[in-house]
Amino acid sequence: MGGDHGPSVTVPAAVSFANRQPEAELVLVGLEDEIRAQLKKHKAGTHPRLTVLHASEVVTMNDSIETALRRKKDSSMRVALRLVKDEQVQACVSAGNTGALMAVSRYLLKTLHGVDRPAICTLLPNQKDRPTYMLDLGANVDCEPQHLHQFALMGSALVSAMEGKPRPTIGLLNVGEEDIKGNEVVKQTAELLRADHEKGILNFYGNVEGNDIYEGTTDIVVCDGFVGNVTLKASEGLGRFVKTVLTTEFKSGILNMLGAVIATGAIKAISRRLNPSRYNGASLLGLRGLVFKSHGGADAYGYEWAIQRAFDAAKYDVLSRIATTIAELMPQADAAPRAAEAGAGEGAGEIVNTESTQQKTA
Amino acid sequence: MGGDHGPSVTVPAAVSFANRQPEAELVLVGLEDEIRAQLKKHKAGTHPRLTVLHASEVVTMNDSIETALRRKKDSSMRVALRLVKDEQVQACVSAGNTGALMAVSRYLLKTLHGVDRPAICTLLPNQKDRPTYMLDLGANVDCEPQHLHQFALMGSALVSAMEGKPRPTIGLLNVGEEDIKGNEVVKQTAELLRADHEKGILNFYGNVEGNDIYEGTTDIVVCDGFVGNVTLKASEGLGRFVKTVLTTEFKSGILNMLGAVIATGAIKAISRRLNPSRYNGASLLGLRGLVFKSHGGADAYGYEWAIQRAFDAAKYDVLSRIATTIAELMPQADAAPRAAEAGAGEGAGEIVNTESTQQKTA
Repeated sequence: MGGDHGPSVTVPAAVSFANRQPEAELVLVGLEDEIRAQLKKHKAGTHPRLTVLHASEVVTMNDSIETALRRKKDSSMRVALRLVKDEQVQACVSAGNTGALMAVSRYLLKTLHGVDRPAICTLLPNQKDRPTYMLDLGANVDCEPQHLHQFALMGSALVSAMEGKPRPTIGLLNVGEEDIKGNEVVKQTAELLRADHEKGILNFYGNVEGNDIYEGTTDIVVCDGFVGNVTLKASEGLGRFVKTVLTTEFKSGILNMLGAVIATGAIKAISRRLNPSRYNGASLLGLRGLVFKSHGGADAYGYEWAIQRAFDAAKYDVLSRIATTIAELMPQADAAPRAAEAGAGEGAGEIVNTESTQQKTA
Repeated sequence: MGGDHGPSVTVPAAVSFANRQPEAELVLVGLEDEIRAQLKKHKAGTHPRLTVLHASEVVTMNDSIETALRRKKDSSMRVALRLVKDEQVQACVSAGNTGALMAVSRYLLKTLHGVDRPAICTLLPNQKDRPTYMLDLGANVDCEPQHLHQFALMGSALVSAMEGKPRPTIGLLNVGEEDIKGNEVVKQTAELLRADHEKGILNFYGNVEGNDIYEGTTDIVVCDGFVGNVTLKASEGLGRFVKTVLTTEFKSGILNMLGAVIATGAIKAISRRLNPSRYNGASLLGLRGLVFKSHGGADAYGYEWAIQRAFDAAKYDVLSRIATTIAELMPQADAAPRAAEAGAGEGAGEIVNTESTQQKTA
């Protein structure tokens, strides 16, 4: 039900994915009538691998975390996450309110043993034409070194599973490459990561800078949720700016329009390579269940990518790989009290939307 | 002497600017032979408004701040800044090592009364096709609310002078628009800015997000140097990525090349509108003198823009306007000890380069 477009996007994406992927079974959770109408429209009213589960409420983009957690107990989001918890499905995909999704996920699924705080991990394109994984994107606006350390461990397990890379490289986002650069939190995090690197646990590249995200210097870029969120949104804003300039100029005058028609192959390739939809589908990492967040403004093509990511994560057993990594690499976690399981209350107010509030104008 | 190209870029830029702007007089500081050779090459060996001042040393990109401050006392950077201090020139422009430039500027010029820490302010393009001013870009990786507050005051005075806008709007960079969003520093800064807004001192818009930088939501975006630096470099990286994609695709195949030739008007306009050179020339704000930093990788066209900014700042009397604003708006500064004047030692190690270390590959 979530996102800017609701079932008019999520249902056709699900239909297309189910048709393309014969191993996939999808449960569509939400207002049954709306979903069935969309299924019918897309000629999938009786699809054998698409079932509908009614949920009477919808968490809106403006609902507080409080509302999502305590009031709307029959929201599509919550009912879908309940399916994950009860192991009736292997993953949940939502285009809804990020803060609410994280809070309800934490509350229902709990965090993995050894994880203090879940993080949001997204994919970004780069010069090497394979994704850069970046986390955190806004679940944690204030981080201590141990949090960033855990993000690196989770990111490493995720990329190793999703990309089939046994030792993905990890970069720590900083204002310079040298060890002396950065604030205290970053410097202390670097020490933790270097120690892991020396033990052969992580493949720590060192500090990276903002440009390295798009140069593909490392497979993973680790940062706190404030920096990650601002950087991601600034990139979205710049992307839209570039798109506006390209569109305006190629439409200004007959010759330019003609040139664009003749170079239509280039224009299509550019639009495909720069299309953020290909990178849609952020992981909520560190939970005892697989949860994926689609951009609220995604179209059906983009939403299908988010479903694909969730499907791959289930197929490659990302969840148990992350749990194993954390358990192996952080033996001290066993000794620590299960503070992280106290529920979604703590820190939930910090969770921020990974999408710009003005996205609807995009 | 600074930047990736030295006098082969800075001298032709100075020649071109002097020819275009009859009110301008420029002193070219550095290795005399090299500068004279370039002047001759650009047919300005006897230009009446271009003089050469010899300085025997050069601060390199790899020199530590320590080296720039204590050892190379006859560096072109230092000699040029000395001219500013001695009021023989009205502004200094450099493409050199940012950290060294800030440290030597602080040491020689001192900070303005009431300013704890100078900041670096750059311009970025936006959808409204007028610049967004953003600060800090890396002079301060750890900021307290009063520092961000001072950045807002300095930015407001700068933009009001440079753009002729009496009440430029100020946005506080955050992870969401709502007041409850963000970390403690940002929340407390917002309170200070709201109080100034209510008193009519500042035009505080409220929180802005990363995308707002490129949407031109506010004239000024205030953030700490860590976030600003990462965001700026990420934008540079994304810009280069987009450029690579465009170039590659329009060169792939005869039809695409033909289309590009026919739409050459559009391609030129795109390249002009997206050319970061137009926005070259960051201000080092909060010092008792005007200092401008060109991107190290700038070409002569870009470097000329940095000279233009310095010229405009002198013409519009930016320095005394900032000093007045700070003095008027922060009366408490008179009571505070002049801690900021203790010299360049404190915090100097924090200053970071505003350019990616990999820029030479760009």
